[in-house]
Amino acid sequence: MSTLPPAVIVREVGLRDGLQSIATVLPTERKLEWLRRAHAAGQREIEVGSFVPARLLPQLADTGEVLAYAQTLPGLMASVLVPNLKGAEHAIAAGAALMVVPLSASHAHSLANLRKTPDEVVAEVAKMRALRDSSGAKTIIEGGVGTAFGCTLQGQVSTAEVLRLMQALLDAGADRVSLADTVGYADPAMVDDLFGQALKIAGERLACGHFHDTRGLALANCYAALRLGVGRFDASLAGIGGCPHAPGASGNAATEDLLFMLQSMGVQTGVDLPALLALRADVADWMSGETLHGTLWRAGLPKTFVQHAS
Amino acid sequence: MSTLPPAVIVREVGLRDGLQSIATVLPTERKLEWLRRAHAAGQREIEVGSFVPARLLPQLADTGEVLAYAQTLPGLMASVLVPNLKGAEHAIAAGAALMVVPLSASHAHSLANLRKTPDEVVAEVAKMRALRDSSGAKTIIEGGVGTAFGCTLQGQVSTAEVLRLMQALLDAGADRVSLADTVGYADPAMVDDLFGQALKIAGERLACGHFHDTRGLALANCYAALRLGVGRFDASLAGIGGCPHAPGASGNAATEDLLFMLQSMGVQTGVDLPALLALRADVADWMSGETLHGTLWRAGLPKTFVQHAS
Repeated sequence: MSTLPPAVIVREVGLRDGLQSIATVLPTERKLEWLRRAHAAGQREIEVGSFVPARLLPQLADTGEVLAYAQTLPGLMASVLVPNLKGAEHAIAAGAALMVVPLSASHAHSLANLRKTPDEVVAEVAKMRALRDSSGAKTIIEGGVGTAFGCTLQGQVSTAEVLRLMQALLDAGADRVSLADTVGYADPAMVDDLFGQALKIAGERLACGHFHDTRGLALANCYAALRLGVGRFDASLAGIGGCPHAPGASGNAATEDLLFMLQSMGVQTGVDLPALLALRADVADWMSGETLHGTLWRAGLPKTFVQHAS
Repeated sequence: MSTLPPAVIVREVGLRDGLQSIATVLPTERKLEWLRRAHAAGQREIEVGSFVPARLLPQLADTGEVLAYAQTLPGLMASVLVPNLKGAEHAIAAGAALMVVPLSASHAHSLANLRKTPDEVVAEVAKMRALRDSSGAKTIIEGGVGTAFGCTLQGQVSTAEVLRLMQALLDAGADRVSLADTVGYADPAMVDDLFGQALKIAGERLACGHFHDTRGLALANCYAALRLGVGRFDASLAGIGGCPHAPGASGNAATEDLLFMLQSMGVQTGVDLPALLALRADVADWMSGETLHGTLWRAGLPKTFVQHAS
């Protein structure tokens, strides 16, 4: 399998995409424990929250505090989601290493979720870039193109529109972009096609794939992208997450299952999987009553599994 | 995606691999309803049971009756599992279209499960072939090489041994062979490697891939095999199934999720997925208390999904 990247980063988004989608409000001290143990297990990129008004997402109201703690953990790239310029101001002021700006390629989803058209989001990214540069901050700007494979509200989303908006984000000053299957509509052939075209445009600036497991295909979709050389994937411990505009949606790719697939194939991830499974068990306890996902935790690692050094 | 086969057969094994692994004994009339509705939904290959002593698998004691009913359904290829020559005699006498003979490439699993070494199974296949030919029957003999990616008892199973036994089955008179990840140890890179080598040896006589979802990789593994041109996969409705020698094992690839992946990619399967999802809901009711699997049933089909004609 010479086509697979030798190493891949699994970016943990459970603390943001996961927690924003469930009823449980995790106390700040639990979030810090999650961060500490995820870092100790070897995770080096974690999305810790979202700079949105607390009245909209009370689950993430402590993002500033969580980010400040994350910044004390050696070598950890802590990112935040920012839905608008105000959020970007917070992220830059807090010295976030990376901010992810969501854009929905579906106009209907964009209006429902962000109250802006996709092109208005592009224009806002240009302002974020100007602010970042004038402030002398180092915060990386990642434009995340969501509903890239279709939308529960609008239905079809054209590949041409996804690629146009991805290019527009780069032109507006995003340092890099990612593609997200927000509602779990992608299949491996669609991933092969869209990521293949996107890589021709963005090259290494296409930084990440974000797949939901709503219809069971998250890992097959990751594998399809991996074969194209994509080297970073978002995932959520215990697969928590969903989408408020995707009824019945299950969560993100489960971090532990994705790491297992990668490590089993000999792809380096730097993560101690047994340690992460122990954390997963505790996080599951904290989420009592929530629907969790993932498969590996039930059966455990194979007898033949080799935990590679970080 | 020109590398994918234009059409693929998903062989239903829920009535055999599924039912033998769970405590519920499904009444014969339910099995016949399952068969009738699966056939009506377009499934054309179904493993209906196993010719083993009823004291060993009371869940499958009615295999003869179920097979006889299946043979009345137009165009349905009804297969049975036969663990030994005695079972093959039953299958041939009953006029089964296909019998699957399991062989474990793991010696430890073979002794625990079949009380024979793999090579003793090969020798028995030669006797089955002689019996089949002398009787003038048309029953196809498929040798199923299990624990092909590792074993919970023995650990590693060498690729060379898997390929040797596959070749030995063909030499002994099996009409075709299949490869099974009995305990859920496979990853897509392993599938790519083993199926790639096996196809070079067996060509079109490598008839089927059989993956368990014990660690969440069944669909990714199917996709890897599909890319090599493999055109038939075993799967189980609601993912029921497991392995008595794989503690914590979850079941087979879920038929409905696999069909969704295939049809979403434009691969013809001949199955009416909404009709199959309705059957899945009723089968789930019949299995009350059992752990079921699969993901699609919860979220439903995407708004953008197109049900192709059979």
